Order: sequence, then C-alpha cells, then structure tokens
Amino acid sequence: MPSTTYIALLGPGLVGRAVLAQLASLPQFRVVAVANSTRMVLSSSDITADALKTDAAVPLAYGHLADHVSSYPGAAAIIDCTASDAPAHWYAAWLARGISVVTPNKKAFAGDAARYAAIRASARAPTGLSTRKDAGLLFHESTVGAGLPLLCTIKDLVATGDVIESVEGVLSGTLSYLFNEYCAPGNARGFAAIVETAKGLGYTEPDPRDDLNGLDVARKVVILARAAGLASLTLEDVEVENIVPASLRDVASADVFLKELPKFDAEFAARKAAAAAKGAVLRYVGRVELGTGKATVKVAEAGAGHPLAGLGGADNMVVIKTKRFPRGVGHSGRGSRGRGDGVWRGGGCVARAPHACV
Amino acid sequence: MPSTTYIALLGPGLVGRAVLAQLASLPQFRVVAVANSTRMVLSSSDITADALKTDAAVPLAYGHLADHVSSYPGAAAIIDCTASDAPAHWYAAWLARGISVVTPNKKAFAGDAARYAAIRASARAPTGLSTRKDAGLLFHESTVGAGLPLLCTIKDLVATGDVIESVEGVLSGTLSYLFNEYCAPGNARGFAAIVETAKGLGYTEPDPRDDLNGLDVARKVVILARAAGLASLTLEDVEVENIVPASLRDVASADVFLKELPKFDAEFAARKAAAAAKGAVLRYVGRVELGTGKATVKVAEAGAGHPLAGLGGADNMVVIKTKRFPRGVGHSGRGSRGRGDGVWRGGGCVARAPHACV
Repeated sequence: MPSTTYIALLGPGLVGRAVLAQLASLPQFRVVAVANSTRMVLSSSDITADALKTDAAVPLAYGHLADHVSSYPGAAAIIDCTASDAPAHWYAAWLARGISVVTPNKKAFAGDAARYAAIRASARAPTGLSTRKDAGLLFHESTVGAGLPLLCTIKDLVATGDVIESVEGVLSGTLSYLFNEYCAPGNARGFAAIVETAKGLGYTEPDPRDDLNGLDVARKVVILARAAGLASLTLEDVEVENIVPASLRDVASADVFLKELPKFDAEFAARKAAAAAKGAVLRYVGRVELGTGKATVKVAEAGAGHPLAGLGGADNMVVIKTKRFPRGVGHSGRGSRGRGDGVWRGGGCVARAPHACV
Repeated sequence: MPSTTYIALLGPGLVGRAVLAQLASLPQFRVVAVANSTRMVLSSSDITADALKTDAAVPLAYGHLADHVSSYPGAAAIIDCTASDAPAHWYAAWLARGISVVTPNKKAFAGDAARYAAIRASARAPTGLSTRKDAGLLFHESTVGAGLPLLCTIKDLVATGDVIESVEGVLSGTLSYLFNEYCAPGNARGFAAIVETAKGLGYTEPDPRDDLNGLDVARKVVILARAAGLASLTLEDVEVENIVPASLRDVASADVFLKELPKFDAEFAARKAAAAAKGAVLRYVGRVELGTGKATVKVAEAGAGHPLAGLGGADNMVVIKTKRFPRGVGHSGRGSRGRGDGVWRGGGCVARAPHACV
C-alpha cells in the first residue's frame, strides 16, 4: 500500500476538473486544497472544485496554500492547471521545500529562461537511483506531445549519457490535421476549406489564426529544446513561419479571416504542387538542432519514406535523433481528438505525470 | 553531483560489452564486478570484460557477487546481459536486499509465472512519489520494443489508474521488414526472396525459422501482457501462427530451408492478394486483450488508415488502447538495424534502463 500524496489543485477548469475526477478514483491521492485565480479552499478531507463556491473559500494566498499541502505526513504536490503565468513564479520555491509540481501549463517551460533555470535547478535531479531526496519532483509531460512519453524519454536519454542531436516533429494536432488532409492522396479541396472543416470539428482555436501563426508550436519547440539541454533557448530564438497571410493578420474577426482565406488557396496549392512534384507532402514541422541551437517552425516537405510523411489524422509525431540512435527514435500518438474531453488539451496526461519518469 | 551506483555486469558478450562501454563514460557508475557463465572478477576499482581472462578471475558464485556489489556506500545494481535462465532465479533475492536489476534478458519476464510474480513483488513498487524505499528497482525496457519507451509507459498508465484494454503491434524488426517489403507498393518479389535478402542483410537469426516461428514475438507479448497486469499469462497461453511451412520445420539446416521456401511463395501470395483486394496489407502482429486474456501472434490484415499499415523499414510499432486513450497511443521506433551494434538487439536500451521510469 503506497503512502498518501497530498494535492493542491490550481485552476479547476476543463482540464483541472478532469484531473480531479481521475484523482478521486486513486486512493493514494488526497486533494486537500483547490484554488482559482482569486480564491482557495483548504481542507483536511478530500475537496472538490465546487467548494470554491461555498463559504469555505478564502482569498488566494500561495504561501499559505503551500504551507497547508506540506503540513501532512506524506508527499505533497501542487498541480497547476491554470493558463496563468502567476503560479510559475512560485514553482522554484515549492520544489525547493519538497513540494512536487505537476502541470500542463507551458508558461514556465517556454517563458523566461532565467526563471526556467531556477525552477529546473530547484527540482529533484533527474536520476532514478541517486537523487536530491529533499527536493520536489517536476512533471510537465503534457505541455508537449499530446500524451506521448516524450519529455521523459528525452530526459532519460540525456541522464544516461546519450547526446540529443535533433528533435523534430509535428507538434500540433490542429496543424497535423490540416496538412494531412490537404496533402492526402486525391484531395481536391483548397486549404481554406480544410481550415473551415477543422474549425467546425472543434480542432482549431476559436480564431484559427491562433493555430496558424505557429506560436503554440514554437513554444513546444522551446520546451523540447530545453528538456534536451538548451536551457537558455527562448521563444525569440525560434524562427517561425506564420502561415496566416500577412494581409489577414490584423483583420478584426475570425469570421472575416475565414471568409478571406480562400483568396490564398492558390498560394498554398503552388507549394503543395511543388512538393508533390518531388514525391513529397507538406507538413508543419517544429525542429531544433542541439549542436547549433537552430530552432525553426515552418511548412516543410516530407519525402516518401520520411516518418512525417506517414502521419495521418490529427496525430503528433516526433523523431528524436541521438548519438546512440542516429536514425531517430520515432513517436506518433493520438489522444482523443475533440476538445473538452480533458485529453487532447493535456489533461489526460496530468494525472499520469506524478508517476512518469523525471 | 549524483552519488555513485556500483554495478555488477553478467555476460560481457556483444550486448554486455556495449553496456560496459556506455557505463565507462558515465561518472556516476562504477563497475565493480564482471562475470561470465563460470567465472567472475570482483574489484574495488573499475574493471573491464578482459579481466575475466586474467588471474583475478575466480569461480562464479552469485551470492558472493551480490555481497560484493552491495558492500559499497551507494546504490547497487546487477546488469544481466546473459542469454541464460540461471541469473533470473536470483532476481527476487537481489531486489529484496536492495540491489537493482537491469536486463535485456527475456527469461524472467516471459518464463515461469510464479517466478515472475516473486520477482515483481520483490521490486520497489512502481510509484514515483511513494515507494518501498528499501527494495531494488527493476528495469527490463529493452526486452521488448526495440528501444521504445514502452514498458515504462504501460506501467505508468497502470500506476496512475488508467486501464489497459489492448496492446498490439509489430514487435519483431525482422518480421516488420519482411512484411513491409513484401507488401510494399509495386513489390513483385516472392516472400522467399525477401527472407533471403533479409538474411543477407543480417536482419534474421542465423536460421530464419527462429524468427518465422513466432516464438520471439510470443515472448514479447507475454512481457507486455504481464506489464499491463496479466501477471499469470504464460507463453503456452499465446496462440501463435508459425509461418514456417509445416513440411520445412524439421529440415536439417537453414540452407535447405531457404532452398525449399520458394515452393510456398504461391501460398503467401494468395494471402497478400486477399488482403490487397480489401485495400489492406499483411503484418505479423502480436496482440493481447486485457479483458479476456486472449493473446495472439499471427499474420493480420491492416487496412488503409490502420497505424500498422503505415509501418516501414524494420521498425517496431505498438498501439496501446486504454480507458483514457480509447483510440490508442501509438509508438513506432527505429533503432539501428544491423546486428552487432548493441542497439537493435537490446543493448542500447540497457544503459538507459537504470533511469527509465519503473
């Protein structure tokens, strides 16, 4: 019978509630604190998100919340399911005092490099057999890779003396779907029509430009690069190809954008045809080379036989090339595709994370 | 600076020497014992396989070896790179006394179920935050999956409350290559010719019947099934399709077998044509359903859009379906293909294993 881990959950939204539902079925966890952006409930018995609507809620105070979760005779963990940058300022302090941090929030990992360095240095060292046993564990597997065991594999390779040479892949389910469909054999539809379909299926952000501008993929490249050893890489270092046509970047609404996008179908079609002439398909690829530090996010041509050419649906796929695996270790994965099921957006992975490899 | 782990390495053959070479570059490990099937060398300073040829070698005594490796003020691990069943009888005792066990040897994991249960129960429990801290860690990631993070993912899913529904995949690089080539678009060569080519490339066992009989894949299915929770499944429970034609199973040599195999090309071609008529390709698939315990290894048809249909080269691919990931979490991977580089046959993964997730 494993001992108990006491949990504080920040941000009981779509993802946070999915995590709470998973934790409720696991006897080794007890949720003793829940907080939103302004209020928190501390309790000694299991609590739910609804408690925030009751008189038990008090103004949010992170220090007090951390004191509470670490006051129990067991392991303590804070799960940050917010979309906020604020909790990340506390991660280093929490880790240093032995509280584990688990999060699908990209802010700490794609944001300020000095803050990231402090957080990483405060966490328990990534070795299985010998560790700083007093520091907290840090898990953010679900910030990248749609549920694939990606960060733990990279950290494991690095910790055991392998050298990562490059990490490259399709890191957005949305952009995976768009280019897989657009370049599928026999597809005659224009790029704009496929964006429209994807939006209808709930695969895109409310404004699809938030997917097509490449920033989300760039953040994931930063996360992967840092996990692979480039701790100082920042978002500004990533060369990003924004595939929103320049003249549509500032139009007021998503509706106007979608109405205008078909005017650019010929431009997309020309690139597709140029690739097809070489037997290749288009993919929206994030890539980092560890040796040079060069990081790019762009539409790339994947020739027949390239792993990314075989991608389908809305899957992610990542190829890691290392000194020991020069041909690459490939991963492709599929979580549930819809929004709101707590998986595709990272929630499904969160409850796994406390046990994933460091 | 992590503390030191003291290592005893059993079986300094092709894989064992590759592991020793990797360990030599990692300052956190010290190899203080090396043994083959009859002799061992115990030392307090780093030793190499060649020491077994010197006067320092004494008759092998597993108990004495375990005493030695655990006599140091740090973590202790025994890496079993033998192909023997003998060390597996000691795993439970080693783990119980706090010595970690790391191995690419399938014997303990596909063999006797009662012995497996004792080994599993003696290892440190698979949770990251709360563990039996006195027991050893058990790692055998490289027994299945050609270097993919497969067992750690399965154990992680189970440990965090997910329910594995099925595990299915192409688990043999050799059989992957054979059927990928045989069913590749435009291939006109017979099955026997492809077996001949694969043997020439070093992809098969010296006698290709040792690949084609399906037993190696069946062992991997047992390992996956047990990791996923079916601890009592044995090799005898797996329904195996041996694709060596019945009349060739007892012919004396591999040469005779290869000479006779073309006589069966028409049989293989008929199955390929039947699949192709449905838009499918043939793959040699291992599969276990956790609910029913049904385990099979057979030639299966993978229709267009099935992940296994997209497999190429000599890659492994595994699809894990769980309660939380009902569509499956897919993995495809490629190590180096040749023999003798310490990767394809499992060695590359061994040195990773001490740090992989439990």
